[in-house]
Amino acid sequence: MERFVDLIQDKKNGKELSDETIREMIASFTKGEIPDYQMSAMLMAICFTGLNDRELTTMTLAMRDSGKVNDLSAIRGIKVDKHSTGGVGDKTTLIIGPIAASCGIPIAKMSGRGLGFTGGTIDKLESIPGFHTDLSTADFYDAVKEIGICVNGQTEDLAPADKKIYALRDATATVESIPLIASSVMSKKLASGSDCIVLDVTTGNGAFMKDYDQALALAKKMVTIGHHAGKKTIAILTSMEEPLGYAIGNNLEVKEAIQALHGQGPEDLMTVCYTLAAHMISLGKDISFEEAKAEAMESVRSGKAFETFTAMVQKQGGDVSYILHPESFPVSPIQADITASRSGYVAHIDTEGVGIAAGILGAGRSKKEDDIDPCAGIILHKKLGQYVQQGESLATLYTSKETLLSPGIHHLERCFEISETPSKIPALIGDCITI
Amino acid sequence: MERFVDLIQDKKNGKELSDETIREMIASFTKGEIPDYQMSAMLMAICFTGLNDRELTTMTLAMRDSGKVNDLSAIRGIKVDKHSTGGVGDKTTLIIGPIAASCGIPIAKMSGRGLGFTGGTIDKLESIPGFHTDLSTADFYDAVKEIGICVNGQTEDLAPADKKIYALRDATATVESIPLIASSVMSKKLASGSDCIVLDVTTGNGAFMKDYDQALALAKKMVTIGHHAGKKTIAILTSMEEPLGYAIGNNLEVKEAIQALHGQGPEDLMTVCYTLAAHMISLGKDISFEEAKAEAMESVRSGKAFETFTAMVQKQGGDVSYILHPESFPVSPIQADITASRSGYVAHIDTEGVGIAAGILGAGRSKKEDDIDPCAGIILHKKLGQYVQQGESLATLYTSKETLLSPGIHHLERCFEISETPSKIPALIGDCITI
Repeated sequence: MERFVDLIQDKKNGKELSDETIREMIASFTKGEIPDYQMSAMLMAICFTGLNDRELTTMTLAMRDSGKVNDLSAIRGIKVDKHSTGGVGDKTTLIIGPIAASCGIPIAKMSGRGLGFTGGTIDKLESIPGFHTDLSTADFYDAVKEIGICVNGQTEDLAPADKKIYALRDATATVESIPLIASSVMSKKLASGSDCIVLDVTTGNGAFMKDYDQALALAKKMVTIGHHAGKKTIAILTSMEEPLGYAIGNNLEVKEAIQALHGQGPEDLMTVCYTLAAHMISLGKDISFEEAKAEAMESVRSGKAFETFTAMVQKQGGDVSYILHPESFPVSPIQADITASRSGYVAHIDTEGVGIAAGILGAGRSKKEDDIDPCAGIILHKKLGQYVQQGESLATLYTSKETLLSPGIHHLERCFEISETPSKIPALIGDCITI
Repeated sequence: MERFVDLIQDKKNGKELSDETIREMIASFTKGEIPDYQMSAMLMAICFTGLNDRELTTMTLAMRDSGKVNDLSAIRGIKVDKHSTGGVGDKTTLIIGPIAASCGIPIAKMSGRGLGFTGGTIDKLESIPGFHTDLSTADFYDAVKEIGICVNGQTEDLAPADKKIYALRDATATVESIPLIASSVMSKKLASGSDCIVLDVTTGNGAFMKDYDQALALAKKMVTIGHHAGKKTIAILTSMEEPLGYAIGNNLEVKEAIQALHGQGPEDLMTVCYTLAAHMISLGKDISFEEAKAEAMESVRSGKAFETFTAMVQKQGGDVSYILHPESFPVSPIQADITASRSGYVAHIDTEGVGIAAGILGAGRSKKEDDIDPCAGIILHKKLGQYVQQGESLATLYTSKETLLSPGIHHLERCFEISETPSKIPALIGDCITI
């Protein structure tokens, strides 16, 4: 490799880096041969001058290859993975996974924990007493073979280059960069080993990508990488202008997911889940979106999806009695409502703010080491466009610590805007990107 | 201070940093409290989004204040400093310093060593046998009081923030940035303690600023900083489209400087020296440029400038016999000429290339630790616009190592372009910037 400082200079000047250079950069950085101070300068330069599709694909594949790449060939069928770029109240994996699995799509899903204002699937599942997300690779594969689905925690050896780069980005204000986000997401998805990838790219005030066009650009980049990596990849833009469903917080969301698996979830949540599940089934079975959607809906109606979820919980050590009797989930001892200060239509919800409020109540973590309160969170009672009377409850807050309640209330109260006239509600499902 | 990552984010987004933030950033980084990987990201963000005049001045003053600021108040008179942004064959300090000092301007000059393709004043002076550039502060001040001039090496405690930042910039491709260059130069100049500053901002293919407009922008920024710091500051743009004078290499340049002090230097060198010296004298004595220039020329004509140089050499331990008999300087044992491959006019000289060739021959260093050969270098015989016959010598190369000769020749031969018709010679003296 040339002197790394010259490569930083090239990228600063907007020049292309060769494939070999990029591969050496990722390998050397992972091994600790490039100091952090040089890599952070490179990452900042990339934030400004970008990466073209070739560079981006090469970088992503090098990041994938920095660790173990799952070999799912022992699992029969076309494996389909799904990833969301994150949001508030996003419990779709708990619903879509069992739907797709019950339609015959093997789901070997590796998920992460929540950080900042978004929750993580692993935290949500762990709010089911006894549920394990640290299965060995062999047990993970066996569970997929037997049940059709397993949702496990990301292993340490999954794209270690991404872990190292992400930690540096987090400390150097280089998180917000479309190529860097795309390579981070896709390196992990590609290392997870599925054959097809469905990407739920969230956009709006509760997503990392606030701007629709930025989200669209990210979606296109990720689909491009997936395509170049030989995986059928599709991205669907979904709105995060309000939380998805009514529940925010770990076991609150599990209970809402169970409702959804019974076909009784909130309308927006059902719409997003059927859309994403249909894309997964369509890719995995090579059938039309409409056929796939009909299968997805039938799997819910027939109870097959719920049965698959129950079997997954059982296989991963969870106490199934909670799934069968969600009312038995522990409930936070401390609850309070925030109410509407005036009558009118809910015109705006600061979705990231709702996520932060839930975190304050104990549902999230601001540092990796923080503990999570499985019962803490928020249940919304009103969503965008709904009419509310002055004094009527907008949401209920749940926490186990008295001291967290008033900061949570304080934060949540500011998240709602009520106006006299109903405002336009953004489309829930946006563009669908494929190659 | 806010979390430093948030400040990087602000600067990445082009926001202004507060004065307090900037002061804390420089102080904390100097103390080692901000890790290099965060500072390098900040520096790269500054390369793209810049600093406004307030931020730049605050940063420069904070860098100045990171170490000792010379107090020259014990030296009577208006002290004037001079700085060049670097070039090839630039021995002006050796000539201008004694001229200005002999006209009554106290010169307490701290200089650096050469690195890369440019030589350093300290290396040039040390090619005079016995010459010391590591005087204590007390001896330095005493020498200025007694002789009117002393040229000493930069002390370790001069703007240590700049040293730390520069080392990081050098490794992270953040050297090329007008605000970062301006703050680096000016922090040291301001810490040096003179009352007025004359800046020689070089531009052209042998300067760091190849582009005239970039050099002009740098000049304006440095003058602005000087003004805000309460120092009379003036910047003069000078051309580095060819080496200054004929000599490149340490004792070769000292010999040419002695010629110049006798009024017999090359025309371009004399022009630049009289111009810069006149600005120094004009600032220091508050007289017109024309009056000052007449004084400068008279000091050379009368021999006062040469006497001052001789006194300075003696005071700093140098063997004056070499100054009085420059022909006694040691001469490289190995010499060779490069000749014109065709007849015509010298149309272009790759000035940086000439500097690199001199470095290859032993006159420069590529790493700080490298030794320097005081006799090595190049004497040009032809300059821009001059006519040369095929086979006539363009330059003589000097080195003490046989193995360095052919790489030097190889490099230098490519530096000359000869054309049938004379091309336009760029103006030697460009804009003069003041507030």
